[in-house]
Amino acid sequence: MPTIDFSFIIAMLGTVAFSVTAVLSVLPKKIDIFGAIVLGIITAIGGGTMRDIILGVPVFWGSELSYLWVAIFSSLIAFYGNSIMSKKYIYKLMLYLDGAGISLFVIQGAEKAIQYDFAWPIGPILLGVLTAIGGGITRDIIAGNTTLLMKKELYAVPVTIGAILYVCLVSFFPQYNVIIGISSIIITFLIRSIAIKKRLSVPKWMLTNG
Amino acid sequence: MPTIDFSFIIAMLGTVAFSVTAVLSVLPKKIDIFGAIVLGIITAIGGGTMRDIILGVPVFWGSELSYLWVAIFSSLIAFYGNSIMSKKYIYKLMLYLDGAGISLFVIQGAEKAIQYDFAWPIGPILLGVLTAIGGGITRDIIAGNTTLLMKKELYAVPVTIGAILYVCLVSFFPQYNVIIGISSIIITFLIRSIAIKKRLSVPKWMLTNG
Amino acid sequence: MPTIDFSFIIAMLGTVAFSVTAVLSVLPKKIDIFGAIVLGIITAIGGGTMRDIILGVPVFWGSELSYLWVAIFSSLIAFYGNSIMSKKYIYKLMLYLDGAGISLFVIQGAEKAIQYDFAWPIGPILLGVLTAIGGGITRDIIAGNTTLLMKKELYAVPVTIGAILYVCLVSFFPQYNVIIGISSIIITFLIRSIAIKKRLSVPKWMLTNG
Repeated sequence: MPTIDFSFIIAMLGTVAFSVTAVLSVLPKKIDIFGAIVLGIITAIGGGTMRDIILGVPVFWGSELSYLWVAIFSSLIAFYGNSIMSKKYIYKLMLYLDGAGISLFVIQGAEKAIQYDFAWPIGPILLGVLTAIGGGITRDIIAGNTTLLMKKELYAVPVTIGAILYVCLVSFFPQYNVIIGISSIIITFLIRSIAIKKRLSVPKWMLTNG
Repeated sequence: MPTIDFSFIIAMLGTVAFSVTAVLSVLPKKIDIFGAIVLGIITAIGGGTMRDIILGVPVFWGSELSYLWVAIFSSLIAFYGNSIMSKKYIYKLMLYLDGAGISLFVIQGAEKAIQYDFAWPIGPILLGVLTAIGGGITRDIIAGNTTLLMKKELYAVPVTIGAILYVCLVSFFPQYNVIIGISSIIITFLIRSIAIKKRLSVPKWMLTNG
Repeated sequence: MPTIDFSFIIAMLGTVAFSVTAVLSVLPKKIDIFGAIVLGIITAIGGGTMRDIILGVPVFWGSELSYLWVAIFSSLIAFYGNSIMSKKYIYKLMLYLDGAGISLFVIQGAEKAIQYDFAWPIGPILLGVLTAIGGGITRDIIAGNTTLLMKKELYAVPVTIGAILYVCLVSFFPQYNVIIGISSIIITFLIRSIAIKKRLSVPKWMLTNG
């Protein structure tokens, strides 16, 4: 990661986007404010929490409360301001911020696994993907929605490509760690953005009987 | 907590109630005795287990087997004695015992997080709530039922109020730790009891488009 | 366990079977290759991961990557070769391999809990069962299928019998640890095999209102 501040800002924006899109996605189900906040928090910090538990290290939000505060306030705002938040262009913005969030979190997750020398090379890829999508899957399960793994939307695939790219490049050129990290985040985000813009589905050869 | 014995007795009664209401809630689904016991155990110890894993401490039932034994026997009795257990007044009793259980477990959970100096002040609130309702949510997910987060019943809200109350008061008056703990348990239980008695739902302003 | 090599081979065959049956079970849902691999991995290593987290020890696949590689390649093959894999006799073979897998993993899980002196005697039984069926339950939840706990198939019951048998016998005759382990695996597998062959359901007295 370039500097702590920069990646911290993206992490916070990603947290906002994760919470807001989480709340908006369950609103049709007539949830109460308490449930909305809990789902917002779980979506925002669930993946990273699972990663840290598997790594056997203290959960990241235990010593950095901003994640929780941001998740709580974003959920509150999304809940009571949903008439604004679900406006088309705000929702689009949130989709792209969510894309920035998963792009950052997948690389952060992979990097943390590498840092702890965990099960290279599949460990970092797996934990990167888990960091990015674990919270969203848990949200879908609790809300009783089809989980994102079972949808044809191009969501998990860009994340996986980003993780593989980062881990492969970093293992060949460890000295370019930072620039590879930034590039992987950008590439992941670009693929996801194109998927949002063009409403892309998973290509046929990747599907059953493809 | 006043004395270990007193809170231990409530914890055991809460465990009984958690297991029994768990088994009764899945009986319409034609489950077998094995599944019933597993769901009983998960409901009773699931929340506290997640709390301990997030705290990074040994799970509480590893060194205190009574929780498991009580959960197993209560599930067995609820399963084979369900014609008695689902009698209206027994079921009501179980509902209130369950209310006592969540009231105790939420404060216990928050207190344990404070003890380990974990992410004050949201950490203790979050882990308190998780301790109380984490097991029940997991049970609903495994059984394929709508999770309690997505219902309008006033269940999670009293728990959250109790957790916030306890954490706020204790941070201002740490020396009255014990009396604040007992009061918070009682207040949580009173709110939940009123909700059971009056069949209260979450108030409108807390609901979507409220 | 007799020798490391022998139990390692069964563990790998079990991993193959877990991943393949996982992928085949979600194919009707039109999943993509990414989702298939993730579900294959979760089914194969999910139960053991939960066991290790509860035990508070490093996850087993962190230092033994074969589990991940085997799960990934088996999922890939099952996904693209599903027209062959779902052929009746191949599928039957997979069912029996899966049976061998759960039989091995339940005893391995119980044995690991005993090794760490965890909550004897219910701890080892519980963690043995969790090791064997935890991954499959998580797969069903993510895929939106009815979890195996809520089905009448004789799947979890043989596993539980095996765990109880092993833990009871080992506590009376600790010196025959190895032979008891092998026997318990075989007995579990035999019960499960009979259940597959005769399409047995859970007996009536074990069911609701039985």
